[in-house]
Amino acid sequence: MIVNITLPDKTTYDITIEQLNNIYFDTKVVVVTNPTVSGFHLDYLKNKLNAKELSIVTIPDGEQFKNMSTIDMILDHCFEHRLDRKSLLIAFGGGVIGDMTGFAASIYQRGISFVQIPTTLLSQVDASVGGKTGINNKYGKNLVGAFHQPKAVYIDPYFLSTLPKREFGAGVAEIIKMAVTFNKDFFLWLEQNDLTKEENIKIAIKKSVETKANVVIKDEKENGIRAALNYGHTFGHVIENETNYNTYLHGEAVGIGMIMANALAVKLELMNKDEEKRVKILLEKYDIPTSYKIKDIEDFYSHFFLDKKSLDNKIKFILPKSIGDCLITNEVKKEDVIEVLKGFN
Amino acid sequence: MIVNITLPDKTTYDITIEQLNNIYFDTKVVVVTNPTVSGFHLDYLKNKLNAKELSIVTIPDGEQFKNMSTIDMILDHCFEHRLDRKSLLIAFGGGVIGDMTGFAASIYQRGISFVQIPTTLLSQVDASVGGKTGINNKYGKNLVGAFHQPKAVYIDPYFLSTLPKREFGAGVAEIIKMAVTFNKDFFLWLEQNDLTKEENIKIAIKKSVETKANVVIKDEKENGIRAALNYGHTFGHVIENETNYNTYLHGEAVGIGMIMANALAVKLELMNKDEEKRVKILLEKYDIPTSYKIKDIEDFYSHFFLDKKSLDNKIKFILPKSIGDCLITNEVKKEDVIEVLKGFN
Repeated sequence: MIVNITLPDKTTYDITIEQLNNIYFDTKVVVVTNPTVSGFHLDYLKNKLNAKELSIVTIPDGEQFKNMSTIDMILDHCFEHRLDRKSLLIAFGGGVIGDMTGFAASIYQRGISFVQIPTTLLSQVDASVGGKTGINNKYGKNLVGAFHQPKAVYIDPYFLSTLPKREFGAGVAEIIKMAVTFNKDFFLWLEQNDLTKEENIKIAIKKSVETKANVVIKDEKENGIRAALNYGHTFGHVIENETNYNTYLHGEAVGIGMIMANALAVKLELMNKDEEKRVKILLEKYDIPTSYKIKDIEDFYSHFFLDKKSLDNKIKFILPKSIGDCLITNEVKKEDVIEVLKGFN
Repeated sequence: MIVNITLPDKTTYDITIEQLNNIYFDTKVVVVTNPTVSGFHLDYLKNKLNAKELSIVTIPDGEQFKNMSTIDMILDHCFEHRLDRKSLLIAFGGGVIGDMTGFAASIYQRGISFVQIPTTLLSQVDASVGGKTGINNKYGKNLVGAFHQPKAVYIDPYFLSTLPKREFGAGVAEIIKMAVTFNKDFFLWLEQNDLTKEENIKIAIKKSVETKANVVIKDEKENGIRAALNYGHTFGHVIENETNYNTYLHGEAVGIGMIMANALAVKLELMNKDEEKRVKILLEKYDIPTSYKIKDIEDFYSHFFLDKKSLDNKIKFILPKSIGDCLITNEVKKEDVIEVLKGFN
C-alpha cells in the first residue's frame, strides 16, 4: 500500500506500507540507528539496501541522548565520510532516531535529503508524517529543530515482531487518538478488528497516516487544526512531567490524557457517557493504562502553564465532539477542569 | 528606496535602503550584536526600535566564534527570555552576525522570524539577500546551516560612516563582482560614479541587491545559475586558505580572485584585454588588492579540490564573458589554469 503526501509547497513523497523490497540509491547513504534496533534488524535492512557507498552511525538509545551532542556525532560521521549535497541519511529506529536524523539532515550543508524507516508502531503512525524534527535541551522537549520533510518513508510491519507489548500499546493509543478526533468510521472499524493481526495493523497504519497527512497538509506549521493532533497531550504532558518521564511511555501518558480529556468533554456536554466508555474499552483492549491518581489537584493544574502551547496564560484543550470530531478551545473555566480532575483523585 | 523580494514559494519581504525610521514590533524582540557594532551604534538603533519586550544578546566578534557554541549562547538567551513562536530576532552587525542570527532563528522552536539590519557594506550588498545562514566547524566554513529568509531587511548607509576603509573596499569588490557577471550597464555606471558619496552608494547597494535577488529567485538552492555569484571565489578561497584567513578580508581575496578569473577568461578568449584592464582599474580605485604572489603553483592548483563545490574532482570556474555575462564551467584544462597561475608567480 502506498500513501502519497503532497504538501502545499509541492513537496511530495510516498509512504510505502509493506515488506521492504530492494531499495537502490545512486548516492552516498548513512544509516542512523541505535544498538537495540541495529541488533535486531540491521542485517535485514542491509540485505535490502543498495547504495553507492553505505555507512552506519550508531547513536546511544534513549530520550536522554536526544540532544545537540548526538547531532554532532551524526554530523561528524557525515563530514568524515565526505557526504555531499546529494547524499542521503536514513533514520532507522523509533521516533527519537527519526527526529534527530531529520534535524541533522536539515542542517548538514544547509539541508540534504533523508528517508524514514520507522521501526516502532508509534513512529510508524506518528513520527513519519509531519516533518517535525528536533532535539531536547535543558529548557524542554523538542525546543530546537526544523521542519524538514522526508524524501520517502518505508513502513515494514515486520519490525513490529520484536516490539515489546507495552510499546505496541503506546502506538495503538496514537491510532485510537486519530480515530476519535477525526474519523468515526475508522473508530467503528477499530472496535471490530484486532490490531495484533498483521493484515489489520497495516490497514490501521494506513488509515492513521492518511488521517494525519490530511491534517498536516492543511496546517503544516501548526497555526490551527494541526493542534488537534495533541488530543490527550495537554493532560498527558503533565502526567509525564509529574512521573519524571520514567513511569509511562509517551503513548501511555497520552492514553490516560485522552481519558481525562473525555471526562472534561462529557462535563461540557460535548461527548456522552456511552461514547466515553467505548473509547476506554478500546484502549483497555490493548492494555493501555486508563487510570491515574492525582496527588495534588492544584499542583497538577498549575503544571498546564509550563506547556509551550499554553500562551497568554490560557490552557489549550483538545476535546472530542462525540466521536470523529473535536473542538480546540482555550476557554474552559478553571472550576470545570478542577471538578474533572477530582474524578482522578 | 525599497526592493521587494518574492521567492517562488511566495515568501516575500522588503529590503529598505534609507535612514532607519521608527520600527515597531508587537512581539518580543532579541537583538543579536557584537561589542564593536554595539559600541558604535546600539544607542542609535534603540532610539528607532520599539518592541513589546526588547533584549540584547552580545556575542564575541570574529569569524572564529562563528560556531555552535555561539548559537547555543543565542538560543539560551531566547529560552531565558521565554521567546515564543511569534517572537523575532534582529541581526545587527556584519555577515557573521547575520549568518548566525538567521541560523539560530531557523532552529529556535523549529523556526521563528528574523530581521536583518546589516552594518557593513559587504553584508548590506551580499549577506542580506539569499537566505543562506550557518556556522563553521572544524571541517570548513558554512558547513552547517539552513536556508531561512528574513522577514525584512533594513539597510541604513549611516552605519558605513564608522566602517574601516579596507572593509568598505571589500564591500565594493562584491558590488563590482555583481556588475561584471550580470549587468554591463551597472558596470558602466560604476566606472562613472564615486561610491564614497552617500547618494551613489545607496544606488549601488540597490542595484547589487536587485541583481543578486534576480539570481536567487531563479535558483534559491544553488543548483545552477546561483553558482555564478561565486565569481572570484574559486581562486579567492585558495588565497584565503593559503594565507590562513588572516591576511585578506574575504572581499579582498575575492577581488584578487576576480583578477585571476579574468586572466583565465582572457586566455580562453571569453574576455578581451581591454575589459580585463577596466575591471582592474575599477578595483584599484577603491584600493582593493589586485596582485598576489603564488609560492608553489602545483600546490595552489591542488587546493582547488578542497572546495565543497568541486565535486567529482572537477573544478568549477565562473568566468566572465566580456562584461555583464558569465560562463559556469568545469571543463577548463589543467594546462590552461597552470599557464594563467604562472602569471602570478
